[in-house]
Amino acid sequence: MAIVTPGKMIAEDISEESVCGPSRVLWISEAGGLTQFGAFIEILSPGSRSSLKHWHKSEDEMVYVLEGTVTVIEGDTETLLHPGDAATFGAGEPTGHFLENRSDAPTRCLVVGTRAPVDVISYPDHNRVCLRYRSLPDDVWTDGRGDPASNPYG
Amino acid sequence: MAIVTPGKMIAEDISEESVCGPSRVLWISEAGGLTQFGAFIEILSPGSRSSLKHWHKSEDEMVYVLEGTVTVIEGDTETLLHPGDAATFGAGEPTGHFLENRSDAPTRCLVVGTRAPVDVISYPDHNRVCLRYRSLPDDVWTDGRGDPASNPYG
Repeated sequence: MAIVTPGKMIAEDISEESVCGPSRVLWISEAGGLTQFGAFIEILSPGSRSSLKHWHKSEDEMVYVLEGTVTVIEGDTETLLHPGDAATFGAGEPTGHFLENRSDAPTRCLVVGTRAPVDVISYPDHNRVCLRYRSLPDDVWTDGRGDPASNPYG
Repeated sequence: MAIVTPGKMIAEDISEESVCGPSRVLWISEAGGLTQFGAFIEILSPGSRSSLKHWHKSEDEMVYVLEGTVTVIEGDTETLLHPGDAATFGAGEPTGHFLENRSDAPTRCLVVGTRAPVDVISYPDHNRVCLRYRSLPDDVWTDGRGDPASNPYG
């Protein structure tokens, strides 16, 4: 067992120059020694996004809102989530999604996602596909046709 | 995607006659169609426990405290968790654990656990082992020697 108080969570800061805007991730799973799923607190600054629009072939994802109001975008559908609301994204559902903080205060969500040995992450708005082998150190990026391509996060 | 507001979570009430005392579980994963991990809000009444002392051979578990103070017991170690604190239990860590609400108000935690195809759950204080095959409808209970035995939850 590991007790993971907020001060023990492993902080990862996403800079203001990021394509998704500034945010902070507080890793619980890594601080607690878990490997089967990732779990973290995501703190989005006003105007920031959680990621580019994407969907996972092999990994279930869940978001639970702790503080503030968060907009979840899936395809062309936009839904405002409040504290206590959750959104789930099943592996293989082929519609891209992301979170956006359209409020004027920071928001906090708890995010959980399975760790599949191999995953394919599609970015329909960016003509990109990410091949993720957990056994390899780096992701492999291609365009939609499978040709080598740049990482859309820059 | 599924939006799972509190009213859409699937409620499961544990009765006052339960060996662990009354509690309520609000399933997010089932309401949202996820299969790779279970996720639920656990509301423990004062004096209630989350489960008998146990550990999982194959499934990572995590608890995140949303409201109230919760005591986590692992082996002979007792730790008081506050809102914003988490506890993680790695698959195969052979020390039993459970949560207990020793406060005078209901507590709320978000609980996440992987869904392994096969798991073995050990109950060291009760001389019981639970064999869980997700492909089968029922768990199989034995004592510590592997002989058929009763379900300690009654």
